[in-house]
Amino acid sequence: MHPQIDVGILGATGVVGQQFVRRLAHHPWFRLRWLAASERSEGRRYRDVAAWRWPAPIPPEAADLIVASPSPAGAPAVIFSALDASVAGEIEEAFARAGHVVISNARNHRMAPDVPLLVPEINPSHVALIDVQRRVRGWSGAIVTNPNCSTAILDLALAPLRPFGLEQVTVTTMQALSGAGYPGVPALDILGNIIPFIAGEEPKVETETKKILGVFDGEAVAAHPVVVSAQTTRVPVANGHTVVVSARLADRPSIGAVRDAMSRFVGAGPVAGLPSAPSSPLICFDDETRPQPALDAGRGDGMTVSVGRLRECPVLGIKFVALGDNTVRGAAGAAILNAELLAAEGRLS
Amino acid sequence: MHPQIDVGILGATGVVGQQFVRRLAHHPWFRLRWLAASERSEGRRYRDVAAWRWPAPIPPEAADLIVASPSPAGAPAVIFSALDASVAGEIEEAFARAGHVVISNARNHRMAPDVPLLVPEINPSHVALIDVQRRVRGWSGAIVTNPNCSTAILDLALAPLRPFGLEQVTVTTMQALSGAGYPGVPALDILGNIIPFIAGEEPKVETETKKILGVFDGEAVAAHPVVVSAQTTRVPVANGHTVVVSARLADRPSIGAVRDAMSRFVGAGPVAGLPSAPSSPLICFDDETRPQPALDAGRGDGMTVSVGRLRECPVLGIKFVALGDNTVRGAAGAAILNAELLAAEGRLS
Amino acid sequence: MHPQIDVGILGATGVVGQQFVRRLAHHPWFRLRWLAASERSEGRRYRDVAAWRWPAPIPPEAADLIVASPSPAGAPAVIFSALDASVAGEIEEAFARAGHVVISNARNHRMAPDVPLLVPEINPSHVALIDVQRRVRGWSGAIVTNPNCSTAILDLALAPLRPFGLEQVTVTTMQALSGAGYPGVPALDILGNIIPFIAGEEPKVETETKKILGVFDGEAVAAHPVVVSAQTTRVPVANGHTVVVSARLADRPSIGAVRDAMSRFVGAGPVAGLPSAPSSPLICFDDETRPQPALDAGRGDGMTVSVGRLRECPVLGIKFVALGDNTVRGAAGAAILNAELLAAEGRLS
Amino acid sequence: MHPQIDVGILGATGVVGQQFVRRLAHHPWFRLRWLAASERSEGRRYRDVAAWRWPAPIPPEAADLIVASPSPAGAPAVIFSALDASVAGEIEEAFARAGHVVISNARNHRMAPDVPLLVPEINPSHVALIDVQRRVRGWSGAIVTNPNCSTAILDLALAPLRPFGLEQVTVTTMQALSGAGYPGVPALDILGNIIPFIAGEEPKVETETKKILGVFDGEAVAAHPVVVSAQTTRVPVANGHTVVVSARLADRPSIGAVRDAMSRFVGAGPVAGLPSAPSSPLICFDDETRPQPALDAGRGDGMTVSVGRLRECPVLGIKFVALGDNTVRGAAGAAILNAELLAAEGRLS
Repeated sequence: MHPQIDVGILGATGVVGQQFVRRLAHHPWFRLRWLAASERSEGRRYRDVAAWRWPAPIPPEAADLIVASPSPAGAPAVIFSALDASVAGEIEEAFARAGHVVISNARNHRMAPDVPLLVPEINPSHVALIDVQRRVRGWSGAIVTNPNCSTAILDLALAPLRPFGLEQVTVTTMQALSGAGYPGVPALDILGNIIPFIAGEEPKVETETKKILGVFDGEAVAAHPVVVSAQTTRVPVANGHTVVVSARLADRPSIGAVRDAMSRFVGAGPVAGLPSAPSSPLICFDDETRPQPALDAGRGDGMTVSVGRLRECPVLGIKFVALGDNTVRGAAGAAILNAELLAAEGRLS
Repeated sequence: MHPQIDVGILGATGVVGQQFVRRLAHHPWFRLRWLAASERSEGRRYRDVAAWRWPAPIPPEAADLIVASPSPAGAPAVIFSALDASVAGEIEEAFARAGHVVISNARNHRMAPDVPLLVPEINPSHVALIDVQRRVRGWSGAIVTNPNCSTAILDLALAPLRPFGLEQVTVTTMQALSGAGYPGVPALDILGNIIPFIAGEEPKVETETKKILGVFDGEAVAAHPVVVSAQTTRVPVANGHTVVVSARLADRPSIGAVRDAMSRFVGAGPVAGLPSAPSSPLICFDDETRPQPALDAGRGDGMTVSVGRLRECPVLGIKFVALGDNTVRGAAGAAILNAELLAAEGRLS
Repeated sequence: MHPQIDVGILGATGVVGQQFVRRLAHHPWFRLRWLAASERSEGRRYRDVAAWRWPAPIPPEAADLIVASPSPAGAPAVIFSALDASVAGEIEEAFARAGHVVISNARNHRMAPDVPLLVPEINPSHVALIDVQRRVRGWSGAIVTNPNCSTAILDLALAPLRPFGLEQVTVTTMQALSGAGYPGVPALDILGNIIPFIAGEEPKVETETKKILGVFDGEAVAAHPVVVSAQTTRVPVANGHTVVVSARLADRPSIGAVRDAMSRFVGAGPVAGLPSAPSSPLICFDDETRPQPALDAGRGDGMTVSVGRLRECPVLGIKFVALGDNTVRGAAGAAILNAELLAAEGRLS
Repeated sequence: MHPQIDVGILGATGVVGQQFVRRLAHHPWFRLRWLAASERSEGRRYRDVAAWRWPAPIPPEAADLIVASPSPAGAPAVIFSALDASVAGEIEEAFARAGHVVISNARNHRMAPDVPLLVPEINPSHVALIDVQRRVRGWSGAIVTNPNCSTAILDLALAPLRPFGLEQVTVTTMQALSGAGYPGVPALDILGNIIPFIAGEEPKVETETKKILGVFDGEAVAAHPVVVSAQTTRVPVANGHTVVVSARLADRPSIGAVRDAMSRFVGAGPVAGLPSAPSSPLICFDDETRPQPALDAGRGDGMTVSVGRLRECPVLGIKFVALGDNTVRGAAGAAILNAELLAAEGRLS
C-alpha cells in the first residue's frame, strides 16, 4: 500500500512543529503541502519564521512554503496539530467540523470520551471511537490524539504488563528541556539544577494511562483499573525523558517473565509494517548503566522505548527505568504513527 | 559547655575530607591538629597535596599541617574518617583498637550490630551501642558511623512519620556529582545526561534506613519494620541530592497532619544546642517549584533538609520531594554532629 | 564617616535589581526605602513580584516594600537604576531633571560626553563631570554610570597597564548566563553549547574602555588612545565572565613588571576605605588552571577581578585571562561603589 | 579507483580509537581487520573492552575482533594510530621500522622534519616527505601525521588566507570535553565552569600551524612565516571546538574578498573525490549566532569547518569564529583522509 496523501501542520514553528516538518519531509505516504502558525508568521516563508534548531537544514519542501493562517480554508484534508494547548481546543474543532481529520499532539481533547487517545502498538481498536465522535458531534472530520510525552513512554513499558494484572504504578519522571518547547525553560533556572514540578503534568500521566490501557467495547473506552501516582521533574537534559517506575502486578510474575513480555512486545496487529513503526517498540538492557538519554533516546529513529534495570521492588513487586524520545515517540512521531494507522485502515481517504 | 578537643581526619584530601577541614576549621569545640591521607601525600604540606576545590581558600590552621600516615601513633584521640571504603575497614579498626574514637563517614561498619549508625535528631540513644561494642570487641576506642548521603536526607524526612506507622517507602534519588568524590564522574558521561545506576547505593538506602529508624533496647537495635525500595540515579548537578518519595502510613493521617509533624520536627532532646545542629532540621515549602538543589542545598549551613510538594499519593498515601546537602548533612556535617553529641554526653573525654 | 542616606532602586525585580537589593540590605551608609518596577508589579509587595533566585531569602527590609511606579514623586534623592535599556533613557532623565542623583547600570547614557562612566579605582576624577552635566543640562540632579559587565572586568585588568603605554587589546569574552538577565537565554540554546554572538556587546567593550581609561581635564574626558577589538560569546556558566586578553604595550615591559603592576594595583586615592571597595581590586594567580568562574567569581565579595596565565604573547606582547563577577563588579556592586564615592565626596547630600 | 586495503587500529578503545572504528566500519576502500589496545584488553573481544559511548552500536565487523597486542607481528600493512602520546612514540616507530605505514593522530612525530604533518586540502605535496623519511631512517614503512584537533580546525580557516599574506594570528579556543579523551575531565571540574588552561595545547597550535601552512621543496618543509598566539580553554561542551580568531593579512583585503576566498576554498587538487573529503571543507555563515557546536560540529559528516562572524578587527585587520568536529576533522576523520590521499597516490600498496 502506498497512499499519497497531502498533509498540513498546525503550529509548525515550535519544537514539536519542527519535528513534524523533519519527519514528514521524506515520508513515503504523506506529502507536506501546508503549514500554519500564529499571526506573526502568517504570509512569510517558513524558512524566515522558524527558529530552526536542528543540525540538518530545513527540508527544501518546507523551507519555501508560505505560512498560512490556522483556518480550514485551503488546508489539506489531513492535518497534524502541534498547537499550544492555549489555542488548540477551538482551532482543532474548527478543522474537524470543516471535514478535516486532525491528528493532534495537544492535550485539549485527549480525555474527551469520544476522542481516541491512540498508541497503535497498544490500543489500535480505539480508532473506531471516531465513528462515535462523528455521530455524537455531527462532524464530517475528526480529532485523534496521542498521549502526553511522559505518558507515551511510560505506557509502552506498561502495555506488556497488562496480562499480569497491572494494578498500581508509581513513576518519577526526569523530563528533558525539549519537552517544554521553545524558548521554554530559562537556562538560569536549570543549569546544574533540578526543578521538582512541571505544571499540569502529573494529572496527565495519571489519567491518560487509564484511558490508553483501557478497553473499547464499540461505544466507549472503559478505563483500565490501574492506579498511577506520578511525580514529574525537569532536568538539564536536552532531549529524552527518563521514567523511574515501580509497579504492582496481581499475578506476581517472575522478573524473567516480565522481561520476556517486554522484549517480545511488538504491539497489536495493524501496527506492523507502518512506516514509522520501529522493529522493536521496546528494548531491554542488561547493562545496569542504561538507558541514558544521551545515548539511547534516538533508538528506533526515536520511536523505540528503552527499558533497563528491571528487578524486584520490595514494595510494589517490580521496578525498572524506561526512556524515550519525548519529541518523537512522545509527540510528532506518535502522531505520525497514528496517521499511518488511520491511512492503513482506510480512514484518511 | 565548651570542651576543647583535639581532632584529626583520616582521608583528608578527598571531597568529604576537604569538607571536614572546612567545617572543623572554626569549630567551637574541636581543634584540627592532624591530617592523614594516602602514601602519596604523606610527609607533605596539606596545601600542596589537596586538590582544593572551594571558593574560599584552605583554612590556615590546616594549610600547613604535614600530612601523616594513617596509623594511630601520634594521632589525637578523636578521629574523623573520610576514608574510601576500600581501605576504611581495617584502618578504622586499628584506630579503635588503639583507643581512638573514630567518627566515620565510611560505609564499612555501618551495619555491624554493635556499631551506632547515628543521626542525632533521630536516634541519639543509639550512642550507647558503643558500650556493647567495647564489651564485644574488647576495644578501648570505638567506631561510630553516619548514614550514606541519600539515606541521611531521606531518613530526616521519614523520622517525623514514625508515629503515623511508617510501613512502606518508594524513593527515586537524583544524586549530585559531589557524591561520587573526585575525580568521580567523567564529564563526558554526565553532561546533559542521566545515569540510572549508582553501584551499591540502593541496598544502602534500603537497609540503613531500617537500622536508623530502629529502637535500641540497651543491647541491640531492632530494625524498624518499614520496607524501602530505592532507585538511585546520577544527575548533572554539582551538589545537593534530591529524593522523590512515596510512603504508606498505617494511620492514614491527613496531609495537614503530616506537614505539621515535619515542620515541628526538631529531633530528640540532646541534639538541641549542639553547635552544628540547625535550628530546623526540616523545612517545608509551599512553593511547588521547590526545593531545588541550586537554591536550597545550603540551607541551615547545609544541615537542613528541605521538603516540598507534600501531597496525596493515590498508590501509597503520601508523596513529597526532599533535598539536602550530600557533602554536609550526608557526610562531613553529619559526622561532626555525631561527634558533638558524643562530646555533650561526655564520651570524648 | 557614616552617612545615612535613603536610597531607592529602579528596575528592582530583575537579576541586577535583585543583586542591588541583596547588597543594599545591610549597607552601612545606604538605607533601602523604595523600589520601583514595571506596571505589572506596581502596588504589590516586593516579595510577591520578584522571582527571587538566590539561596538566601529576600532581605526583610525589602520583602514587604510596596513596589512603586518608576516616577520621581515620593522617591528618595539617591536612586540606583537597574532598568532595561529599552526604558532607562527617559526614566533616568526624568529623575535627574527632578533633582535625583541616578546611579545607573544601564547603557543608555554611558557614552554621553557629560556623563561620568565611573570605576572608582580607575578614574575617580571623572566624578566632576557631574558639574559639567548640570551646567549643560540645567538639572539639579545627575546621572552617573558604570560600565558594561565585560568592560568593567577587562578594564580593571587594563588600568595598571596604562603607565606602560597601552596601545592595542584583543579580547575574547566567555559570558555567563546571569549577564543576559531573566528569563534570558533559553536552556535549549545553551546547554552544552556556545553562542558566538551577544547583540550590541562588542561595541560597548570597544568604546567604553577608551572613555573609562581616558583623562578628564575639568571639562571633558579625552578618550584613551587604546584600540580594543572584542569578540563576545555566551557560555553555559551561571555567573562570572571570563575574558581572554592579548595586549600591546609601547614600553615592552617584562612579564614580571606587568605582574607587579597588576598585583600592586589598588586604585586611585579616594576609593580606599569605601565600604564596597575590596582590599585587592586585582589578584594574580600562579596556578595555570585559574581563574575559573565556579571558584573565583565571588572573590572580594564579587568585587575583585582575578587574573591568571599572564605570559608573553608572540603577536601583541602580553596575554592573560581575567575573570570577574558580572552581576557584582560588572553591575550592582559597581554602581554601589560609585555611590559610595559620590557620598564620600559629599555629592549625595 | 576502488582499492581494497586491510587496515588496523592502534589504541582502538579510547574516544578517538572508537571514532576510527565507527568511520572505518563502512569505508569503501579500507577493511578493518585488526585492533590493538593496552595489555589490559589484549586477547578479549572488542565489544567486551571498549567503553562504547555512541548512540549507534559497535559495528559488527569490529565488535567480535579479538584485541591484539600493539606489536607489528600479524598486523595489516596500514595502521591508524590513536595511541596516547605517552606510548605512541616507540610503538609507532616499531611499526614503521617493520614496514607498516602508520597514519597517526598522536603528537609525538608531528614536528619531526621528515614526517608529513598532513591536511590534504592544504598541503598534499607534503606527502612526499615520506621519501625523505625512508631515506633518512632506513625504514620500509613510514609515519604520517595529522594536526592537533584545534590546529586542524584553525588551519582550514587560515589556509585560504595565505594568498593575502598571512602574518599574525591570535586565537582563543573553547575546546570540548571529547578532546580530553575518556575519562578525561572530571564533571566536578567543568559543569557550569571554564578551565582556562589545557596542558601542552598552546605550543601545538602555535608551531604546527607554521609547518602545515609551509612549503615543501622536495627535501624539507619551510615553515610559514605566520606568528600565532594561542590561548586554549576547556568548556562544558560535549563535542566541537570553537576557535575565535583575529588575523593580520599583509594585503589588507576587504572582508568581501576574504569571505569569497573562504567560501570558494576546496583545497588542492588531489583531495577532490577522496571518500572522506567533504564537498565544502569550509562553509561561511551570515547568521551572526552561528557557528554553534551543538548545531554545526557535524556538518559535512564532521569534516567541514564552519566559519561565522567574519568582520573587521580594529587591531589585526580581520576577525571571525570557526568551529569543527574535534574527534573527526581534528582526529580520526583527518587521519582517514590522509590515508585516502596516500592510497590515491599509490603509496599504500
